[in-house]
Amino acid sequence: MSDVNTRQVVAIPYENITITDEFWESWLRAIRENTLRSQYEQLATTGCLDNFRRVIGQSDGKFEGMWFEDSDAYKWIEAVSHTLSRTDDPELRERLDDVVSLVVDAQADDGYLNTYVMLEAPNLRSTNLNMLHELYCAGHLIEAAVAHHRATGEERLLAVAQALADLVDGVFGPDGRDGTPGHEEIELALVELYRVTDEVRYLDLARFFIDQRGRGTLKREFENQAEQAGDEDIWDGARSEFFEDGCYDGSYAQDHAPVVEQETVEGHAVRAMYLFAGVADVVLESGGTKLFTALERLWEGMVDRRMYVTGGIGSTHKGERFTEDYHLPNDTSYAETCATVGSIFWNQRMFLLTGDTQYLNLVERTLYNGFLAGISLNATEFFYANPLQVDSDGHALHDVDPIRFSNERQDWFDCACCPPNAARLLASLGDYLYARSASTDAIYVNHFVESEVIFSIRHTDVRLRQETKYPWAGDVTLRIDVAKSVPFPLHVRVPDWCETVSATLNGEELSVDADAEYLTVDREWETDELAVTFEMRPELLVAHPTVRADIGNVALRYGPLIYCLEEVDNERPLHHYAISETGKVEAEFEPGLLNGVVTLTGSARLPATEEWEGTLYRLFTDTATVDAEFTAVPYYAWANREPGEMRVWLRSVLEHD
Amino acid sequence: MSDVNTRQVVAIPYENITITDEFWESWLRAIRENTLRSQYEQLATTGCLDNFRRVIGQSDGKFEGMWFEDSDAYKWIEAVSHTLSRTDDPELRERLDDVVSLVVDAQADDGYLNTYVMLEAPNLRSTNLNMLHELYCAGHLIEAAVAHHRATGEERLLAVAQALADLVDGVFGPDGRDGTPGHEEIELALVELYRVTDEVRYLDLARFFIDQRGRGTLKREFENQAEQAGDEDIWDGARSEFFEDGCYDGSYAQDHAPVVEQETVEGHAVRAMYLFAGVADVVLESGGTKLFTALERLWEGMVDRRMYVTGGIGSTHKGERFTEDYHLPNDTSYAETCATVGSIFWNQRMFLLTGDTQYLNLVERTLYNGFLAGISLNATEFFYANPLQVDSDGHALHDVDPIRFSNERQDWFDCACCPPNAARLLASLGDYLYARSASTDAIYVNHFVESEVIFSIRHTDVRLRQETKYPWAGDVTLRIDVAKSVPFPLHVRVPDWCETVSATLNGEELSVDADAEYLTVDREWETDELAVTFEMRPELLVAHPTVRADIGNVALRYGPLIYCLEEVDNERPLHHYAISETGKVEAEFEPGLLNGVVTLTGSARLPATEEWEGTLYRLFTDTATVDAEFTAVPYYAWANREPGEMRVWLRSVLEHD
Repeated sequence: MSDVNTRQVVAIPYENITITDEFWESWLRAIRENTLRSQYEQLATTGCLDNFRRVIGQSDGKFEGMWFEDSDAYKWIEAVSHTLSRTDDPELRERLDDVVSLVVDAQADDGYLNTYVMLEAPNLRSTNLNMLHELYCAGHLIEAAVAHHRATGEERLLAVAQALADLVDGVFGPDGRDGTPGHEEIELALVELYRVTDEVRYLDLARFFIDQRGRGTLKREFENQAEQAGDEDIWDGARSEFFEDGCYDGSYAQDHAPVVEQETVEGHAVRAMYLFAGVADVVLESGGTKLFTALERLWEGMVDRRMYVTGGIGSTHKGERFTEDYHLPNDTSYAETCATVGSIFWNQRMFLLTGDTQYLNLVERTLYNGFLAGISLNATEFFYANPLQVDSDGHALHDVDPIRFSNERQDWFDCACCPPNAARLLASLGDYLYARSASTDAIYVNHFVESEVIFSIRHTDVRLRQETKYPWAGDVTLRIDVAKSVPFPLHVRVPDWCETVSATLNGEELSVDADAEYLTVDREWETDELAVTFEMRPELLVAHPTVRADIGNVALRYGPLIYCLEEVDNERPLHHYAISETGKVEAEFEPGLLNGVVTLTGSARLPATEEWEGTLYRLFTDTATVDAEFTAVPYYAWANREPGEMRVWLRSVLEHD
Repeated sequence: MSDVNTRQVVAIPYENITITDEFWESWLRAIRENTLRSQYEQLATTGCLDNFRRVIGQSDGKFEGMWFEDSDAYKWIEAVSHTLSRTDDPELRERLDDVVSLVVDAQADDGYLNTYVMLEAPNLRSTNLNMLHELYCAGHLIEAAVAHHRATGEERLLAVAQALADLVDGVFGPDGRDGTPGHEEIELALVELYRVTDEVRYLDLARFFIDQRGRGTLKREFENQAEQAGDEDIWDGARSEFFEDGCYDGSYAQDHAPVVEQETVEGHAVRAMYLFAGVADVVLESGGTKLFTALERLWEGMVDRRMYVTGGIGSTHKGERFTEDYHLPNDTSYAETCATVGSIFWNQRMFLLTGDTQYLNLVERTLYNGFLAGISLNATEFFYANPLQVDSDGHALHDVDPIRFSNERQDWFDCACCPPNAARLLASLGDYLYARSASTDAIYVNHFVESEVIFSIRHTDVRLRQETKYPWAGDVTLRIDVAKSVPFPLHVRVPDWCETVSATLNGEELSVDADAEYLTVDREWETDELAVTFEMRPELLVAHPTVRADIGNVALRYGPLIYCLEEVDNERPLHHYAISETGKVEAEFEPGLLNGVVTLTGSARLPATEEWEGTLYRLFTDTATVDAEFTAVPYYAWANREPGEMRVWLRSVLEHD
C-alpha cells in the first residue's frame, strides 16, 4: 500500500506537444475532418441543439431525445475545443461558436441550465438526484467550459459553468441540503473547475458529493418519491436498476456504501469510473489517505478479477454493470466504450498520484484495445458495447438491442454517450503522453507515440523528440536537444507486456533492468540520443482458471495489442480453430490492410468435416482433425470490413512442456 | 425413402405386460404412491378443479390459472387411468371418480366444454383458434377419456369426449368452416377416439385439421381479430410469437407451410411433436404417402441437426422452440420435458409405421435421458426446461424465469403442462415395450425392461419373460414358454449405441450381425432361453463441428445413458476438467448412490491454480496443468442432491491417433 497522499506527477499539457505519429495521426485527422462534423449534424438533426433553441424561444415543439441529451452537446464542445488547440479549422470554429452561444443564451438568470427540466419538468428542478441527471449534465458542461477556455482563452462558457456551479454549490453542501448525484460526473468536473478558477468552493463541493455517497440520501429520495411516480415517469427502466428483489440496492450507482468503505467495483461501469476519477482528482488536489486506500483496493479488485483482456469493463448489458469476480462472458459482454474512457481517466489520475507504471500500462492496454475497438477506422462509426466474440449474424444479445449489440458500428445512438466521448478522449490524447515529477526534475515518457515535447528544466528549455513505429515495432528513439546541458532523470515506461528491453545512449549499450517499471537515465543531458528496444513478439495469454468463458482458450497478444480472428480472413467458422503450436505464430506488417496492421498467422488444429453427413453425434474415436493456418488482426481493427464472425479467445490444444 | 404407407407393426398393449424391472418399477411405484396424489392436491389447490365446480355452480369466484388449465386435469385423469390398470388403489380410484364426475357435470348440453371460455369469455367460443387452446384442451379430454375407458371399461367420460368431438366435427370440416388449432393435440386424440369408437368421422376430422395447417386460416384469424384485441387480452405474449418484424410468421405453430411441404421442424417444440404424432396416427390408420414422406424428412432434419444428445429438443426459451440447424446451446437450452414426451409419441408411431429401429433407438435415448431428467428420483418434482449445463448458482437464464430455469426441480408450475405429462407417459410405459407385426407372426422386443408379456401366435399362447439389469448392464435373457411349439420370428432390437453383440440360444452360441437393426431368431419356439449381451462400456461422443457450443468437448455415454458431472461429486469447478485419456474411463455400479447408479470415473487435466494471486491474464508458457479424477453420474439423476453446477459436455484434450 502506498503512502501517497497527493500528487506525485504532473502531466505535460498537450499545448507543449506535437504529435506526428502515423498510427495516431490518422485517428486525430479523422476526428477533425469527419467525426466532429458528422457529430454536429447529429446534434442538429436529433433535436439536441433545438432543445437549447426551444429554451431561448428560437424553436417550437417539445423536448427531443434522452433527458440527459444536453451532455452530448457538451462533450462535442469539449472534443472540438481540444481539436482546435492542435489545428485551427475556421468552419469547425464557427460551429463551435454557434453551439456555445446557444448554451450561453439558454442559461436561466439564476444560473440554472438543463433543457429537459426547463422545457418539460420545471417542477422537478433539483428534486430527483437519482434519475434526472441534472448534475451529470452540469458536470459535462463544466468539462466543456474548461476545455473551451483552455483552447480559446474565452470566458463566456466558463462563466456559464461557474454560474451553474455556484447555483449547485448554493443548494448542496454542509450549509445546504444533503445529496449526491445518481450518475457521477460532476465530481471530477468540479475539480477541473477549481483548477482553472482557484475557487476552493468547487473542490469542497466535489469532496462533499463524494462523502455523501453511500450514506442514504439516494435511498431516502426514492422513499419520498414513491407516491409521485406516474405515467410520465420516463425513467422507470433505469429506476429498476436501483432495486433488487424490491429492496433498494445502491450498488448500481456506487451508493451501497461510503466510498472509503467500498470493497469492490460495483454497478454501472461508467458511473463507477467517473466517480473514482473524481475521487482521485480530489485526492490529487487536497489529499485523503482513506480515499486513496479505497481507490487502490477498488482498482486491484477490478484489474485482478473484473476486467476483459482488452481493458473493457462491465460484464452485462443489464444495468451496464460489473457483475461478479471472474464473470467475463465474451459474447454477452458489455464493455461499453464510455467505460473505457472513464477507466483511462481514472488510471491517468492514479498515475499522477503515484508515478506507478501499472496505471500507465492499463491506460495503454485500454487505449489500444477496448477503447479503440469502439471506433471505426474512419472514426465516424461507433460501438456502444464491445463484445470479444460475435457470431456471423451479429451478437448473442442481438435480440436484446440490435443497435447496441451488433457487428456493425453505428454513427449515432438514441443514447449517444459513446461517440462524442470517444472523440473528446482522442482529441486530448496529447495530455497522456509525457509527465514530470511534482517535486523533482524527473521527466516521464508514458506512451510511445511519435511526437515532440518541449519542457523546461531549471530554466533551460528541453526539446525531446520521440521516434517510433509503435505499436507495430518496439523501437523507440528519444532525441534530446537542449540549449545548454541540464541534468534530469528521464523515466521511460517499460511496458508490462515486454520481457526483454535493450537500450543505447548515443550508440553505447546501456545496462537495462527489464523488471524495472522504468528505464531511467539520469544524467547531464546535452544533444543526446537514447534508443530503446522493447522486444515485441506474438504471445499467447490465458485467463485465470475461474473465468469460465475463457477456460482452455488463449488470446493472442503482440506488443500492446490484443488480436482477434475475423471471419473474412479465415476459411472455417472461427470456433473450429484450436491453436496448436506455441512458438510458431508469425507477425508481419501488411501496409494495405486496415490502414496498415501487423497480422499474426499460425498453425491450428481443426475438426475434420468429412463423414458427418446424416450424423449429429459420433464416437470421438471415429473422428479426426486436420491442420490449417489462421490469420489474426488487431482487435481494435475488427468490423471494418464485411460484417461477420469475430473471436478474441481461441480454443487451444497446446501442451505444457 | 420407405414406401411404407400404413401400419407395419402393432404395439402389444400394457394389459398383456407385467413390468418387474428394478429400474422402472421404482418410478412407477413413485408415480402411483406419491406423484398422482400430490398432483391431485395441486389440481385441488390451484383452482383447476374449482373451475369445473364453478361451471356446475358448486363454487364461487373467478376462473383461476392459465386459460388452458383444464388440460392439467385431463392429463392427470389419463395418468391415473393407466396406473390403475396396473395396480388397483381404492383411494386413487375414488379421486379419479370425483374428478371424472366434475368433468361430466361441467359439459354443456350441446357438448361444449372449456371452463375458461364458459366462465370468462362465452362470447369467444370457437372464435380464436390461434390462442384460445379450446381444441388443445379438447384433445387432452379425449385422450383422458380413451384411457379412462380402457382402464375402467366405463363409458361416461368417453361419452363426454364423443359429444365434444361431435360438436367440433359439426363446426369444422369440408361441410363446415375452415380452421386448424393454434396448439396441436386434438389430431392424435381424434385418431385415438376413432380407434376406440370406429367412428371414421373422427379420423377424417383429424386429417382435415392437418390438411388445413399452413393454408392461411390462422393468419386470416389474426387479421380479423386485430380490432378486437383489448386490455383483457391475456395472451399477448404468446401472440407475439406468431409475428416476426410485425409480419405473420406461422412457424411458431407449424403454420408456415402445409405439412406435406414443410422442410424442417420449426417453432414451438411441443406443438410440433404433437402435430407430427397426429400426422403419423392418421397415416397409420388411413395411409398418406406425401404425409409420410414429409414426416421422414422432418424427422431426419430434427435428429441430424436440431436435437440435444439427450434427445431434448427446443433450443431457446423464447417461443419454447426450435431455432436453427446446429444451434444447440447447453446453458440456455430449453429442451422442455413435454417436448420429449411428444417426441416419444411421434417416434413410437414412426416405428409402428415402419418397423425401423432408428425410431425405437430415439425413444430409448429420449426416455432414459432428456425425458427422465425432467423428473426427480421420487417423481414428485419436475423440470420444465432441461439444460445440459448450469452454473453453481442455477442457470444462465435464471433471471428470465427462475422457476422454469433452475437447478432445483419444482413440484408444480403456473403453466403446469410438464408434471402430469411426465406422469401419463411413465404410467403407460408398458405400451412401448413389445410389438408384433401387422401382417406376419413376427414379435418385437423393443426395450430392455424386466417384464413378462403374453401374446398369442396362431392360437397358441406364448409367455415371454425378459430378465435384465438394463441400463446398468447389457445382458438380456428372454425365456419363452409355450403350451405347444409354435414358429415365429423374434426380433430383438440391437441398440444403436452397441457395437458388439453376442447371443446364445439354450446355451449355444449364435452368430450375430451387430450391424443389423435386429437380432432375429426365427424358429419353432418351445421352452427356450435366448440370452443376448449388448456390450456396454463408457464411450466418448463428439458433436458435429458446426455445433459451436460443443466444439472441443466430449459427452460421456454408457449404454443408453448420457452422463454428466455434478458439483457434489467433483472437487473443482466443472469447467476445469478436460478429459485426457480415451480408454481409461471406468464404470462401477454404486448401489447406495441415487437409488443405485453406475458411475463413470476417469482422468482429466486441469489448470494448476497456484501462482494466480493478483493476476487475471498470464502468458500460457507461465502456467501449468495438473491431473485429477472426475466422477460422472447419469444425466437423468442430476439435481437430486444439493443444488450445484452440472455439465454434460466436458472439455477434452484428447489426441487423435
